[in-house]
Amino acid sequence: MSASSPSHITFRSDIAVTVNQQAGSDLDIAESAWVSTDASDDHDRSEKAVSGLINYLIKHRHGTPMEDGYLSVTVEAPIFVAREWMRHRIGSYSELSARYSVLEPVFWVPGIERGIINAGTSARPVMAAADESLFVITANHLTSVYQCSWESYRAMLDAGVANEVARSVLPVAIYTRFRARFNPRSLMHFLSLRWNHPSNRYPTHPQAEIEQAAIQLDGMLAMYWPITHRAFTAHGRVAP
Amino acid sequence: MSASSPSHITFRSDIAVTVNQQAGSDLDIAESAWVSTDASDDHDRSEKAVSGLINYLIKHRHGTPMEDGYLSVTVEAPIFVAREWMRHRIGSYSELSARYSVLEPVFWVPGIERGIINAGTSARPVMAAADESLFVITANHLTSVYQCSWESYRAMLDAGVANEVARSVLPVAIYTRFRARFNPRSLMHFLSLRWNHPSNRYPTHPQAEIEQAAIQLDGMLAMYWPITHRAFTAHGRVAP
Amino acid sequence: MSASSPSHITFRSDIAVTVNQQAGSDLDIAESAWVSTDASDDHDRSEKAVSGLINYLIKHRHGTPMEDGYLSVTVEAPIFVAREWMRHRIGSYSELSARYSVLEPVFWVPGIERGIINAGTSARPVMAAADESLFVITANHLTSVYQCSWESYRAMLDAGVANEVARSVLPVAIYTRFRARFNPRSLMHFLSLRWNHPSNRYPTHPQAEIEQAAIQLDGMLAMYWPITHRAFTAHGRVAP
Amino acid sequence: MSASSPSHITFRSDIAVTVNQQAGSDLDIAESAWVSTDASDDHDRSEKAVSGLINYLIKHRHGTPMEDGYLSVTVEAPIFVAREWMRHRIGSYSELSARYSVLEPVFWVPGIERGIINAGTSARPVMAAADESLFVITANHLTSVYQCSWESYRAMLDAGVANEVARSVLPVAIYTRFRARFNPRSLMHFLSLRWNHPSNRYPTHPQAEIEQAAIQLDGMLAMYWPITHRAFTAHGRVAP
Repeated sequence: MSASSPSHITFRSDIAVTVNQQAGSDLDIAESAWVSTDASDDHDRSEKAVSGLINYLIKHRHGTPMEDGYLSVTVEAPIFVAREWMRHRIGSYSELSARYSVLEPVFWVPGIERGIINAGTSARPVMAAADESLFVITANHLTSVYQCSWESYRAMLDAGVANEVARSVLPVAIYTRFRARFNPRSLMHFLSLRWNHPSNRYPTHPQAEIEQAAIQLDGMLAMYWPITHRAFTAHGRVAP
Repeated sequence: MSASSPSHITFRSDIAVTVNQQAGSDLDIAESAWVSTDASDDHDRSEKAVSGLINYLIKHRHGTPMEDGYLSVTVEAPIFVAREWMRHRIGSYSELSARYSVLEPVFWVPGIERGIINAGTSARPVMAAADESLFVITANHLTSVYQCSWESYRAMLDAGVANEVARSVLPVAIYTRFRARFNPRSLMHFLSLRWNHPSNRYPTHPQAEIEQAAIQLDGMLAMYWPITHRAFTAHGRVAP
Repeated sequence: MSASSPSHITFRSDIAVTVNQQAGSDLDIAESAWVSTDASDDHDRSEKAVSGLINYLIKHRHGTPMEDGYLSVTVEAPIFVAREWMRHRIGSYSELSARYSVLEPVFWVPGIERGIINAGTSARPVMAAADESLFVITANHLTSVYQCSWESYRAMLDAGVANEVARSVLPVAIYTRFRARFNPRSLMHFLSLRWNHPSNRYPTHPQAEIEQAAIQLDGMLAMYWPITHRAFTAHGRVAP
Repeated sequence: MSASSPSHITFRSDIAVTVNQQAGSDLDIAESAWVSTDASDDHDRSEKAVSGLINYLIKHRHGTPMEDGYLSVTVEAPIFVAREWMRHRIGSYSELSARYSVLEPVFWVPGIERGIINAGTSARPVMAAADESLFVITANHLTSVYQCSWESYRAMLDAGVANEVARSVLPVAIYTRFRARFNPRSLMHFLSLRWNHPSNRYPTHPQAEIEQAAIQLDGMLAMYWPITHRAFTAHGRVAP
């Protein structure tokens, strides 16, 4: 069985976000704020004081101290998610290149629980469940195009066509991999736009797949910067 | 004949870059430099003086004055070009969304003159011409996958599937449209990486399609900022 | 009378902002939004349609189309204003250098109408008027330090001391000059933080001198992008 | 003796840079590069392989993988150094505010070994030693202006004048304190401009005080990312 056999194709519905490196804490954010407001270095560093300060900062949108900290993650997601993600310019990315490398046959399909019909408007889409027959028809379209494009991709590579030309047929649903780096402020900005959390002062309409990523990142904010995370949610999840 | 008929499919090999707005001139760049170096406002504003100053700035990589100016363009290009382009974070982009809109059936194919075989290495690809039979085989693969994916896309849309799900099958070769905004400095940075110009001090290996865009943008730099353009090329096309 | 005579010293209370270049319009912002939402190029371009669209964008904080446009200004302000201003990193600056140039003896003093006493807290200062005697005492302190520092500056320069060393004595109230470049979005961000406008959803506490600059810039937004300006104010002056 | 006594005034010549937090390593930079070039996760992770890769990246100016990493530092420096430093927009800063806080009486003076005469040109200053009498005259000018401005500052504060007004008299030589955050790429960019290292392909003319800071930061790059540091120096200290 050759490497280009359709039987190697993998279908996924999940978005994977894993931590590479993290640095900084709520206390560092507080220290960064104290740098601005206090020439002395004599502060009450209790959790209560740090919490009061961070709530004040977030409520009044003093964002700069929230830039003290670092989170580097690796993401596995379809290209259509990577495209949305990288529109966030206050961030840093290294992504798998389909010019330098041959991609793997992993493609996104909706899970059975995912709405695939738009019950909203074109500008503000709201997904609703399809009946089973439409779901099956859709799954068939997706998987058959993926197989057809993958076979052509492999056939062109095997015939000696360059990566950068052969990849033209690959669909935006193919999985890519990238590293993304945040500071706590840019992370909150991402979360405010990419998760339509019930506490959001400004509702947003992210596609479900990038929202999946945001939910995972939200857990990382909660784990590494718990006070900041609580204050962010308490004040409407508006990025400071 | 329905809107989803394959006969509507268009194949293109070109990248189109057109100007929306432009502001600023070589003299503005010189004025921006004089702001730094001269408390008085009494300068020799002759072309010779401006040219001498701009050459000095570029040779010594004083880049900030080169940020005075503006160019907004509209680009029509395949998604794989848009993806590379938007990795330039010092820039600003508005792109056609396949969630909010239905795309048009326009797909990239290589022109007959374009090399499609990699005669270099994977890290530094150099394209070479294929023999005619491989070119034909490749063109057949590309166009047949495009047709197959387009038909599935239309069929899903016609069956009521949401844009954001149906677009999953579209290949990275489908054309998108976006506006991109530059200042002269960010434009030179783009040119230094995206055109392997013979004067480059640092050789680069752009894919031919983004190089096509860079060549057009280079013409715009030459037209609107001719002195800066000459100095940039004279000093190895290293972005200041 | 020598160039270093104290009689040459000028005192100013104003901040001057003048336009160098401008490009773009409300219609360009609308075009940038249509790029995202509409694969066709067939839009209602009436003022009513543009206005409706821009209101929608600002209300829902879709900021990217607001980056299509350009404003370059020259500012004359004390160093303490330049310091606050240049903390806005989404912007571009060219400033008079006190290493490369000798500064002019122009210093900031408060106008008689300006509050100089803090009736608020240290974190949220609110200026109130001083009685006349305190105002006079303050003016005397300011002007005598300015004269003393200016005389030492000139004396060191005349004795052959390098600009970069002699300037050490100059106070942060000395006037500097710089060019600053905005797009409409970064301009609104600046306005939201630097003018405590009554319509602000998020109150802010700028120093009066940078607020003076913001008021002038607000007039420029109103002149060049009137629809955007009205929508910005109507929706709480929250930068999109 | 009151808090405003001149005897409290401190003179310093040094710039202090201390580490708050650090994350990332040469291996992380290599991992970030492998993300782009290799769909598999099977690499030779030996020091030799990492070193070869990083040299390749720096030589060919592939900068993005160098953004994986983090360094947060606290700096004590005169305002004139802070002003130059914060012109680096790819960075993040929290600085002591003279509106929210009262500054400390610490002022910069040149050390005896520091050249204070410009033996170069105004655009490219080169410092040379002054004779002793000029050095003494200069020191007297500096310290007497500092004392005079400090006394007026304290007198205004004691009379009830707001911080933001009283600080107008403070010279740019007064020490401030700020936190600055880097990634390895932005750090190399800073080093390439702020230290006129003999290996520099592009000579630069930093003021001695910011060069002092750069030398300390260079040591931190060498300690945390030794392979990257060697490659940076080997290839002309041009920021990738």
